[in-house]
Amino acid sequence: MDLLKPTHTINSGLPDTQSAFDCRGLSITRAGVRGLRLPCTITDVDAVSQHSVGVFDLGVRVPAAQRGTHMSRLVQCAHELAPQVRTADLESSLRAILERLDARGGALALRFPWFVEKEAPVSRRSSLLDIDVSYDIHLDPWERRPSLQMSVQVPVTTLCPCSKAISRYGAHNQRSIVSVTLQSRRPIGIGELMSLVEHAASCPVYAVLKREDERHVTEAAYENPKFSEDLVRDLHAEISTKLQPAMLRVETENHESIHNHAAYALIT
Amino acid sequence: MDLLKPTHTINSGLPDTQSAFDCRGLSITRAGVRGLRLPCTITDVDAVSQHSVGVFDLGVRVPAAQRGTHMSRLVQCAHELAPQVRTADLESSLRAILERLDARGGALALRFPWFVEKEAPVSRRSSLLDIDVSYDIHLDPWERRPSLQMSVQVPVTTLCPCSKAISRYGAHNQRSIVSVTLQSRRPIGIGELMSLVEHAASCPVYAVLKREDERHVTEAAYENPKFSEDLVRDLHAEISTKLQPAMLRVETENHESIHNHAAYALIT
Amino acid sequence: MDLLKPTHTINSGLPDTQSAFDCRGLSITRAGVRGLRLPCTITDVDAVSQHSVGVFDLGVRVPAAQRGTHMSRLVQCAHELAPQVRTADLESSLRAILERLDARGGALALRFPWFVEKEAPVSRRSSLLDIDVSYDIHLDPWERRPSLQMSVQVPVTTLCPCSKAISRYGAHNQRSIVSVTLQSRRPIGIGELMSLVEHAASCPVYAVLKREDERHVTEAAYENPKFSEDLVRDLHAEISTKLQPAMLRVETENHESIHNHAAYALIT
Amino acid sequence: MDLLKPTHTINSGLPDTQSAFDCRGLSITRAGVRGLRLPCTITDVDAVSQHSVGVFDLGVRVPAAQRGTHMSRLVQCAHELAPQVRTADLESSLRAILERLDARGGALALRFPWFVEKEAPVSRRSSLLDIDVSYDIHLDPWERRPSLQMSVQVPVTTLCPCSKAISRYGAHNQRSIVSVTLQSRRPIGIGELMSLVEHAASCPVYAVLKREDERHVTEAAYENPKFSEDLVRDLHAEISTKLQPAMLRVETENHESIHNHAAYALIT
Repeated sequence: MDLLKPTHTINSGLPDTQSAFDCRGLSITRAGVRGLRLPCTITDVDAVSQHSVGVFDLGVRVPAAQRGTHMSRLVQCAHELAPQVRTADLESSLRAILERLDARGGALALRFPWFVEKEAPVSRRSSLLDIDVSYDIHLDPWERRPSLQMSVQVPVTTLCPCSKAISRYGAHNQRSIVSVTLQSRRPIGIGELMSLVEHAASCPVYAVLKREDERHVTEAAYENPKFSEDLVRDLHAEISTKLQPAMLRVETENHESIHNHAAYALIT
Repeated sequence: MDLLKPTHTINSGLPDTQSAFDCRGLSITRAGVRGLRLPCTITDVDAVSQHSVGVFDLGVRVPAAQRGTHMSRLVQCAHELAPQVRTADLESSLRAILERLDARGGALALRFPWFVEKEAPVSRRSSLLDIDVSYDIHLDPWERRPSLQMSVQVPVTTLCPCSKAISRYGAHNQRSIVSVTLQSRRPIGIGELMSLVEHAASCPVYAVLKREDERHVTEAAYENPKFSEDLVRDLHAEISTKLQPAMLRVETENHESIHNHAAYALIT
Repeated sequence: MDLLKPTHTINSGLPDTQSAFDCRGLSITRAGVRGLRLPCTITDVDAVSQHSVGVFDLGVRVPAAQRGTHMSRLVQCAHELAPQVRTADLESSLRAILERLDARGGALALRFPWFVEKEAPVSRRSSLLDIDVSYDIHLDPWERRPSLQMSVQVPVTTLCPCSKAISRYGAHNQRSIVSVTLQSRRPIGIGELMSLVEHAASCPVYAVLKREDERHVTEAAYENPKFSEDLVRDLHAEISTKLQPAMLRVETENHESIHNHAAYALIT
Repeated sequence: MDLLKPTHTINSGLPDTQSAFDCRGLSITRAGVRGLRLPCTITDVDAVSQHSVGVFDLGVRVPAAQRGTHMSRLVQCAHELAPQVRTADLESSLRAILERLDARGGALALRFPWFVEKEAPVSRRSSLLDIDVSYDIHLDPWERRPSLQMSVQVPVTTLCPCSKAISRYGAHNQRSIVSVTLQSRRPIGIGELMSLVEHAASCPVYAVLKREDERHVTEAAYENPKFSEDLVRDLHAEISTKLQPAMLRVETENHESIHNHAAYALIT
């Protein structure tokens, strides 16, 4: 595939409508492509690589005097980036896109499932847990450095302290999706962030659990009840201390086993 | 709104491409519109009415010699049906559509959230539970009567018997979505079907639960553990006996609190 | 239904875990319920009412010294609000919720489909167009008045100026979803905002179009090509002038007919 | 990772609830796991391999006398299959699962995005098109050989013949999703099936189109208008002749640029 070749300029002789002068006097924050799905190879901060399927959004700032951007170049940029995404180096990926588009501002967002190999707590059987990860980086003309956000969505078990306290036996528990979004000077590993999330829950979840593991997680969750409020407090405190992020948003959405709606809590 | 007026024929003098003769010799099973969202008033078999928002799919059989169908008439049919959907009389709704489209076969599908008022088990506080309901009716030229399927998707609590049996305390439990699809000579009420589903689960779910209710449902679920396999067996047996449907499909999807995937079981 | 009765206090004698003192010293931005689906009656600023189905998110600020909030009260608040949502008076709805929860900050979000009756451009046939609408209002202790955002998502037709300019005949066109989010001192009607969006597109969309209407919209879109960039510029200028909002975000996502991804543009 | 080792039997001394005798006398069609997301390597019939992310559903038949199945073994089977999925050999994958679970019937379903490298029609620029692919194979005790279904969902452009015929210029067109499901004695390649779908549309879609390509696809679609009805007829005839499948279902869903709903047609 010749995706990596520099753009081959074909002098097509066709009018370039997008490059026309625009007289409305209004610059456009972002114009680009969204929802572009591509196979990708992602290398995390610890140099571990993984194949996944990513969804890319790319856009640039369009100055007031220009009618539009060149969407097809953005699609080509995504094709070039996808086989070699480095989570610790998205700044150069964004800068390369802006240069290619001759733009002074723009944004790159990327989301993909990431798979973490985990051992079941007793049997030590290995299995993979899928978590949703996204990166969002943007740069505007008045900023010297791009602003990068990293997000993970980690499934965990939460067990309700109220239900445990008031009931003679049992306690309702459920799968919760914990979302962490942060900005940090130093790159944070996906696995590192996932571990902090799991530590703040009643119990982690696993793809494979043998009977002895199932007993373990059942009892562990019962011994460690957490409201959504407890979880976000504990997690916010832990991440603040350990990672000292410049920005931090912590949220959990508990898919309550006793309701048809979710309980949520967030600290931002 | 003049939605209910008979179609006002405008002799537009424009060519009618859809009615052209087709020489490919292939009839089309269904052609029509899908995903049409409309406000609707639904009257169930017990004459109780409810406002909801429905999504309609309507299509007709296109005979081999005809190029296409008239999509806009199907949209008008849906507009006329939406304010007065009678779940016990979808056969005449379908027949009216077929007549309007001059078609010898076709299908009407409709899905909507239905709200059931329930009392919390101890405090008796009222709240509404939303369940997804759908009807699918179709008729083909070689059939004397239309074939009607009714489906409900009911959220319930399930608690794992294995987890309870092997653990010193606690047991994992989760929200499960139970789907029942059936064909029946006599019309079945939505609430009637929902009650049978809830009865086969570890415990029903509710929108409002006060503390004394929460204790009740926690203990009730613990006292009544059910595998997905147990649930579908119990429910299939109960519906077969009580409703004697001509066709029955029972399925549960448990959103496991200890995994990031679902457990499911189905009997068809 | 006794939903509207003041909360009946049952002295259950059960421990109130949520009200316990919390020593972590961290207040929680929001804790509450999310994804609660209820039938609702919505009255817009022009006093026109409509039945719809809404999805509610309600949450409150939890002070540092308190462990959690009372989720079931939030669910009750949503049940009380749903039958009488007034888009011009969500401030009092939010204040009532905060009072009921004894909270000094919190948020209410609500999204629902809204149906606008439209006449086809030539045949004048009436039909309903469904648009997604949401309101998001929140108040924090350091603010005197709540902050309210209104959003609409309106489907329209866009036709590509480049495709038209470079091709001998035809031009690719597609359904686009235009999202407008704004804050405004005076309440804005849903229909008013929708009209501004449709005016900025290549052509509005309709549920029912007869042949003479189809010709009209086909030619109208061809005569009025718009890039996603053009659409957001025209719409941003128009809304700024006409409605003078305190905050405005305008975005379009074009579901390109020639690609499997979307083109988008936004001004914020 | 020791995923591929034979299951290490830990004599945990815990009761095996799932293996208990069941006296309800009702066998279960399927019990298992659903929505398990895993990275996978897929080899198509032409021996070409690709990394993707798959979602797996696995279930077995549970005989009347047995209470339940062993869900964790199914999860392990999926982990073992994922790195080496061979689309032409899913029968042995299913048989291995049934053997491992000691089951006489069961099902394996798998869906994933597949990426096809395509050249733009004029500039010859390469890019990847993502299509959704799924396989569903099941075997029951009364069958000698499993039943295998293959499905693809291919995005294409359709241009409306009516709109073209009645308008002085232009014609509405849109992205359509064409779904083909078939059973075939000989394995069918994903790319082969995709090509047949694209051939039956007004025009294929591409991720990267330069200006000269955009002119080409605009004019090509205009020269080749297709109703949803035309598309399914042409495609059904072509697949029937070329591939002689044992079962065939062809459907298109056109995301109309002039409506907020879809037009569809299907032949089964």
